[in-house]
Amino acid sequence: MRTLYHLPLDPYSRKIRILLGEKKIEVDLRVEQTWERREAFLALNPAGTVPVLEEAGGAVVAHSQTIAEYLDETVPEPVMIAGTAIERAEVRRLCHWFDDKFNREVTEHLLGEKMMKRFLGLGEPNSEAIRAGHANLDTHLSYIGYIADRRVWLAGDRFSLADITAAAHISAIDYLGDVPWEDYQEAKQWYARIKSRPSFRPLLADYVPGMRPPPHYEDLDF
Amino acid sequence: MRTLYHLPLDPYSRKIRILLGEKKIEVDLRVEQTWERREAFLALNPAGTVPVLEEAGGAVVAHSQTIAEYLDETVPEPVMIAGTAIERAEVRRLCHWFDDKFNREVTEHLLGEKMMKRFLGLGEPNSEAIRAGHANLDTHLSYIGYIADRRVWLAGDRFSLADITAAAHISAIDYLGDVPWEDYQEAKQWYARIKSRPSFRPLLADYVPGMRPPPHYEDLDF
Repeated sequence: MRTLYHLPLDPYSRKIRILLGEKKIEVDLRVEQTWERREAFLALNPAGTVPVLEEAGGAVVAHSQTIAEYLDETVPEPVMIAGTAIERAEVRRLCHWFDDKFNREVTEHLLGEKMMKRFLGLGEPNSEAIRAGHANLDTHLSYIGYIADRRVWLAGDRFSLADITAAAHISAIDYLGDVPWEDYQEAKQWYARIKSRPSFRPLLADYVPGMRPPPHYEDLDF
Repeated sequence: MRTLYHLPLDPYSRKIRILLGEKKIEVDLRVEQTWERREAFLALNPAGTVPVLEEAGGAVVAHSQTIAEYLDETVPEPVMIAGTAIERAEVRRLCHWFDDKFNREVTEHLLGEKMMKRFLGLGEPNSEAIRAGHANLDTHLSYIGYIADRRVWLAGDRFSLADITAAAHISAIDYLGDVPWEDYQEAKQWYARIKSRPSFRPLLADYVPGMRPPPHYEDLDF
């Protein structure tokens, strides 16, 4: 059996969990508290980050986009980076949009300040950073709505790794109750379609001790 | 002819310039001053970042790793993400190591503080950030040396996108004169091999007005 080292609310880990679900690949999920910098884990991934995938034979793949490309090459059904070279580029552009830009502009400000800081005892959340995170989130929800209004799925006609990546990031913020869904109906409809996929269900059952998600978090008709 | 929108000292742009050189693809290089947020450029890439590749037919590909994957699929000779799925994963892991980790730990602290801040009139460089950047650079040079000592190239036996990405990032810091080469002989030997490749030459001729590189920057026997 494969092992996935992950953290429940980490968007990058969630991306791979959804992808594994879409491809119907069973894994042994193992929570890795990366801040402990466990030596055996650093030997698997010197960057010290999750997710890390360990194959039954011992081969190790680290970094979410790298794991996604690896799984798409080795377990191609259903392909999640599909189509022509230009179509595949659009999937990857959107993956990096969320992995790089959304993470820097939203996730670090909201999940970082509200949760990780408190959890790691790094002091009070910075209210200015939180305000900036909310303002940036509005821009990103508009962008998702803009695309979702013009395409069937984010990267085009096919459900792809772009939808998985975007939903993984949004879902972590949604756990905090920070997504103003009522103001962004197109984005909400897109997210509702993903939320109802079987691959997404395990994420809705996640629970971080001491931090209950809002009631709508696991509701498919939110 | 293809067009590459770039910035001369931007590591991500440099990565694609080296890759284009390796594949012997001619492009029309166009400097894009991203901070001006030119509307026609934002229409090509709403993220507003370089590099962006525009094909002769008008197709547009944005984001360095996305462009690299696209070029490897459309102009496969020589392949820069080659081998088995696990070998390809190792190439990609190292690309992200430099694009994500090195950038956050070194480039933003050194190029960001010393150059972009002054250039954009954002105040004095933060000396604490610069000190942290130097300390982190030491760790990264050790890591490069550690790998280079055990493998022919960073990701294995083949010259790959991992070497290109690492060298692109290092070269921007080297332009500042900030790389303590004498303390890192293995990393230096690896870099010297890349520096002598024809694909790398154009970067050594770059010159940013008002900021002369150190004499060793363009010297192949530094």
